[in-house]
Amino acid sequence: MHESTVVFRQEKKTSKVSLGNDILDAANQAGIDISAVCGGRGLCGKCRVIVTEGKENLEHTSYLETLSLSDEELRRGYRLACCVPVVQSGTVAVDVPPESRLQQQRLLVAGIQTDVPPNPAVRKYQVRLTRPSLANPSSDAEILLDALMSQTGIRSSRIGHHALAQLPAAIREGDWIVTVTVREGDEVICVEPGNNAARIYGLAVDIGSTKVAAYLIDLSAGKTVATASATNPQIPFGEDIISRISYVSKSDRNLKKLQGVIAACINKLLDDACRAAGVSFTEVCDVVVVGNTAMHHIFFGITPQFVALSPYPPVIRWPINARSKDVGLRINPGAYVYSPPIIAGFVGADATADVLATEISSLESPAMMIDIGTNTEIAVSDGHRLISCSCASGPAFEGGHIEQGMRAEPGAIEKVYVNPDDLEPGYKTVEDAPPRGICGSGVVDAIASMLKCGIIRGDGGIETTLNTPRIQKTANSVQYVLAWKEETPMGHAVAITQHDIQEIQLAKAAIFSGATVLMAHLELKASDIEKVFLAGAFGTYVDPQSALMIGMYPDIPLDRVQFAGNSAGSGARMTLLSRDMREKAEEISRRIEYVELAADPSFEQEFMKALYFPHKELDRFPTVDQLLAKRGR
Amino acid sequence: MHESTVVFRQEKKTSKVSLGNDILDAANQAGIDISAVCGGRGLCGKCRVIVTEGKENLEHTSYLETLSLSDEELRRGYRLACCVPVVQSGTVAVDVPPESRLQQQRLLVAGIQTDVPPNPAVRKYQVRLTRPSLANPSSDAEILLDALMSQTGIRSSRIGHHALAQLPAAIREGDWIVTVTVREGDEVICVEPGNNAARIYGLAVDIGSTKVAAYLIDLSAGKTVATASATNPQIPFGEDIISRISYVSKSDRNLKKLQGVIAACINKLLDDACRAAGVSFTEVCDVVVVGNTAMHHIFFGITPQFVALSPYPPVIRWPINARSKDVGLRINPGAYVYSPPIIAGFVGADATADVLATEISSLESPAMMIDIGTNTEIAVSDGHRLISCSCASGPAFEGGHIEQGMRAEPGAIEKVYVNPDDLEPGYKTVEDAPPRGICGSGVVDAIASMLKCGIIRGDGGIETTLNTPRIQKTANSVQYVLAWKEETPMGHAVAITQHDIQEIQLAKAAIFSGATVLMAHLELKASDIEKVFLAGAFGTYVDPQSALMIGMYPDIPLDRVQFAGNSAGSGARMTLLSRDMREKAEEISRRIEYVELAADPSFEQEFMKALYFPHKELDRFPTVDQLLAKRGR
Repeated sequence: MHESTVVFRQEKKTSKVSLGNDILDAANQAGIDISAVCGGRGLCGKCRVIVTEGKENLEHTSYLETLSLSDEELRRGYRLACCVPVVQSGTVAVDVPPESRLQQQRLLVAGIQTDVPPNPAVRKYQVRLTRPSLANPSSDAEILLDALMSQTGIRSSRIGHHALAQLPAAIREGDWIVTVTVREGDEVICVEPGNNAARIYGLAVDIGSTKVAAYLIDLSAGKTVATASATNPQIPFGEDIISRISYVSKSDRNLKKLQGVIAACINKLLDDACRAAGVSFTEVCDVVVVGNTAMHHIFFGITPQFVALSPYPPVIRWPINARSKDVGLRINPGAYVYSPPIIAGFVGADATADVLATEISSLESPAMMIDIGTNTEIAVSDGHRLISCSCASGPAFEGGHIEQGMRAEPGAIEKVYVNPDDLEPGYKTVEDAPPRGICGSGVVDAIASMLKCGIIRGDGGIETTLNTPRIQKTANSVQYVLAWKEETPMGHAVAITQHDIQEIQLAKAAIFSGATVLMAHLELKASDIEKVFLAGAFGTYVDPQSALMIGMYPDIPLDRVQFAGNSAGSGARMTLLSRDMREKAEEISRRIEYVELAADPSFEQEFMKALYFPHKELDRFPTVDQLLAKRGR
Repeated sequence: MHESTVVFRQEKKTSKVSLGNDILDAANQAGIDISAVCGGRGLCGKCRVIVTEGKENLEHTSYLETLSLSDEELRRGYRLACCVPVVQSGTVAVDVPPESRLQQQRLLVAGIQTDVPPNPAVRKYQVRLTRPSLANPSSDAEILLDALMSQTGIRSSRIGHHALAQLPAAIREGDWIVTVTVREGDEVICVEPGNNAARIYGLAVDIGSTKVAAYLIDLSAGKTVATASATNPQIPFGEDIISRISYVSKSDRNLKKLQGVIAACINKLLDDACRAAGVSFTEVCDVVVVGNTAMHHIFFGITPQFVALSPYPPVIRWPINARSKDVGLRINPGAYVYSPPIIAGFVGADATADVLATEISSLESPAMMIDIGTNTEIAVSDGHRLISCSCASGPAFEGGHIEQGMRAEPGAIEKVYVNPDDLEPGYKTVEDAPPRGICGSGVVDAIASMLKCGIIRGDGGIETTLNTPRIQKTANSVQYVLAWKEETPMGHAVAITQHDIQEIQLAKAAIFSGATVLMAHLELKASDIEKVFLAGAFGTYVDPQSALMIGMYPDIPLDRVQFAGNSAGSGARMTLLSRDMREKAEEISRRIEYVELAADPSFEQEFMKALYFPHKELDRFPTVDQLLAKRGR
C-alpha cells in the first residue's frame, strides 16, 4: 500500500494521497484552497498548516520551512504544506489556520459570528381585543393596552404617533385581532390588523468611510436573511474622513447633502436586501447603525466639524435612538434607529462594535483588537481594565498614497514573495487578473519579502548595491519592480518605491506605537497578550506573518492572531439581535478608557523607534529577529 | 342740593346725577355700557343692576320691574336700571351683573381668567460650559448636561435629535455660553448660542368646529402677548362634526387633507400672533391644543371615523404629546404639542379644558358647566363626584336650521323684546347694522319674549288668535315678524317661524334633560347648584334670563349663573402655562364619570317633558312660573 490518508479536521474532509505527494496536493485534492503564491516551491511561506496527528508519516522539517517558520511555531507543529511529502502509509491530521485560507478569508469579511440568543429591542405580539360597549365605551388605546397587559404581561404606557394613527383601522380590519410591535417592552410602535407576529425584521448597517454593508436579519429566528453592500456614496465629496468633515463644515447644506446620500444608500441596500428575502419595508422594525464618529455624526445629521480639531470632542458619546423618519430611512415609519455608544472623537461606534464582537472585554486573559483603516482603532484588555486609542495610520493600507496603489479590486497584486536566491518576485492578483496595481496587503507582503531577502534594510532604505535588474534608480528615487510593463495591461511597470516604503513605515509605526502605549498603560508585555483580533477589510486580507515581519503589531505568536473580518458589522448585528448586547455595548463604553495619543508623552518616542522594520529595538521582535537571522540577515 | 352720587363699584366709576334721573342715565354718564334693547322703557328687562347701598335714595320698585324680576331677585336688590329714578340726595352703590353688560360680554369671549402661577412645561436656562481638553476630551453633550446639572440642578438625560444637531455650532458661536430649553425638567429640546433665556413663548389653541382661536403667551411672564382667530378652514369639507367625520372616513387622503388645512390655519394664526408681538417662530417652544374629539383626532392625524358610530369610542383618551414636526406646526422644531385628555367620544379635550377653567371640580359646593354648541358638553360636580355628558343640541343656537338664521355677524338680530301691550317687537342687531337675519341668542330672546307675552304657548305653538299683524299664516306654517321687509336690506322680512321654535325646543330639551340626568345621578336638585357656568360663544352672548325662560337649563337663580366665555381656550392657556394644570386636567379626566345619554333609560322621558316651554312640569321652574303668573300667563 503506497497511500496515506490526510484528514482535514475542521473541514471534515479526507484525501488519499500516494506517498511522495505533499499536504498541499492533499488539500487541492480535497478542494481546500490553501494560499501558495510561489506555486508550492517553499518560497512564499504562506501555505502554513498545523500537523496534529501522524507526524511520523511525514518528511522531517526542511531548511526552507525553518526560514519561514519561527522555532516556537515549529515546536507547535507548524509546517509549510508544499514542503511536507507523505513518506509512510498511515493517517495524517492537519489543521489549516485561517491566515492560510484564501477562500476562508474572503468569507470572513462577513465578520466573526458570535452566537447571540435573540432578545431584540422590538417584538411583535398578537392580541385579541374586547369590543367596547355603550356601558363601557373605552378608547381604542385603552382596549389595546389592557389586552396587551393581560395577554402578554407587557405594561406599555406609550403608543407612538404613527401606531396611534394606525390603531382604529387596524382594529376593525383585523376584526378585533391585531399584531402589536412593542419597542423595549414599553412603546407600541406599530399596530397591524390580524396576526403578523412572525414577520419581524431588522437591518444592521456598518457605515465605513469606503464601504457600506447592510445585513437584513430575521429578528425572531436570529438569522441573517440577506446582505447587501455598496461603495460609500460620500466618497465624491471627500475621499477620507478629514476631507469629508471639511466638506460638511462649509455649510449646513453640505451636511444635509451628505446625510441625504448616505440615507439614500442605506435605503437602496434595504431595498436590495428586502427584495432578495421577500420582506416588505414595513416589516423592518429596527435598525442598528455603526460607523466611525464622523460617519456616525453625519448619518444622524450632526456636524462632525469639531471632531477634526484638537481636543477632537465628539458631539455625543451616548447611544442614540433616533426615529427612522428623522434620518430618512424608509423602514416601518414607527421604528427607531439605534447606534451603540462611541468612545471618542476618533474611536467610534464601530470600535465599540469591534470590542463587543471580539469579546475582548469579556476575556479573562489579556487581549487586543486592532481595526485597521485610515484611522486604526486599538483596544486592549488585561482582563480587568479596558483601554483604547486611535492612530492616524493613513490610507496606505488601503492602497492610498502608494504610487501604484489601488483598492483590493481585480488585478490588484495582493500576495507577493521574493525568491531569496535570485531576488525574483512572485505574486498573486485579485481574481488572478493581469496586474494593474498593488493593494495594501500586497504592499505589506512585498515589503516583508523584500526585508527577508535583504532588499530593504531595517531603516527602510532599498539596498541599491544588490545585483538584480528589479532594483532601479529613477529620477528622484529607487524602486523594486514587481511586474514588468510587459506583464501589465497599462504598459507600465508595477513597482514598490522608496516613497511607498516610507508611507508604510509611517502607517505601521502609528499602529505599533498605539498598541505599545496601551500595553504600557496596562503594564502588559507582548507575550502577555493571549489573543489578537485583526479587524477591518485590510486586517482580514493581510498576511499576519508579513504584518508581523514589518512590525505592524507587537511580536505575538501567529496562532494567537485571529481575523475578525468586519467585526464592526458583527457587533452591529449583535446589538440588533439583542438588548443584552446593547447593554453590553453601553457597559463597554462606560468601562473603556481612552488614551489620547497626541497627549501621551511616550507616544512620539515609541513612534520614532517603530519607524524601523520591524523596530529599532530588535529584541522586541524576537520571532522576526530569529527568522531574519536564519536567513542570515 | 338736587344731586345724588351713583357709585359703580366694580368699574370704580362715579356719576353725579340730578334727582329724577335713573341709574341707566348714571351708567351712560359714566361710560358704562348697559344693555337696554327697549331704549329704557322697562320692557325688555335687560338692564338689570344690583343696588348694594342707598336703596333709600331710590324710587320704590315699579310694576314693570316686578314683571321682569323674580321675587328672589327683588329681595336681593335687583332693579331695572331704566326704572329707578334717584329721588333723594345721597350716595347709591350699584353692581352691574355680567349679563347686563354688552361690552363685558364681548370681552369675555377671551374666556374667564384664572390666575395661574407660571410653571411651564418648557423652560430656558443660560449655562456656561467648560471647554474640553486633550486630557478630558468630553463630548459636547456630556459637557452640556454636566453644566446644566451643576448650574441649575436639572438632571436631564435626553437631548432631542434637533437639539443635538444644534449643539456643536451653538456652543462655539456662543463662546461656551448657551441657552438650553428643557422640557418637563428632562429632555433638552433646543440649544441656542449665548443668552436668550428670557425669550420663551407658547401657543394655546382652541380648535372649534367653527372657529379657531390662538393665544400667544410669554411663558416666563405668564402673559398673553397676542391673540388671533380664524374661521375653521375645514368648514368647506363639512359644516358640522358628523359631516366632517364622514369626509375623513372616505379615505386616508381626506384625513391628511383636513389635518393639513387645520395645521396651516394654526401656522397662519401663529404667524399673525408672532408678527404682532415681535416673536420669532423658534422662540415658540410649546403648544397646547384643545378641541372636541373629532377636531382633536383630525389635528393629530388620527381618524375619528368610529367616534361617529355606537358606542362612539375615541381612539385615545389620554393626553397626547406629539412632536411639532409630526403635526406640521412651524414652531421650534424640537418642540412638542400637548393636548389635555379627552373624556369620551363626544366630550373632548375642550370639555376637559372647560372643567379646568371653570374650576367646578375644585368647588366644595355643587356646580355645573354647560358648553353650548352643536354638541353641548355638560359637567356637574356635587363637591365630591364629577360627572359629564354630551347632548346633541344641534346647530340652532348657532343660527343653523333657523329659517332666517345666521351667525352673530353684523346685522344679526341678537336681542329682542316684545311689548306685552301691543305685541310689537324691539330688537338690537350686532354692530347696530340693518337686520339681515337672526342669530342664536336673538332667537332665544325672541322666543322668551313671545312666551312672556303669550304669543307662544307652553307647547311651543304660536297663538294665531291674537290681534296683531305680526303673526302671519304662511303656506305651511305660522310666523311672528320681527322686522318688516322694509326695515331690511334684503327686501324680505325677518321672522320667527313655527319651525324655528321646534328647532329650539329640540335643542333646549336636549340640554335640559342632559343636565337633569346628570343631576339625578348625583341626587342634586336645581336649587342645590351654587354655580352655573355658561361657556362657548353662544353661552356667552345669550341672555341668561331668556335661556332660563325657555327652560334651557334648570331653574337656578340668575346670580348663580356666570359667563365663562371661551373657557376651553382659557383651559388651554392654563395647561400651557403650568404643568400643575396639566396634572389637574389629567386628574379631572381620571375622576370624571361619563354618562352615555343614549344608554340612560331616563333620558328620553326627561327629553319629552323638556320639549315644553319652560317644561311640562311647571313646578320645576318656579321662577319662570312666577314671572309668567305676574304677567297673567
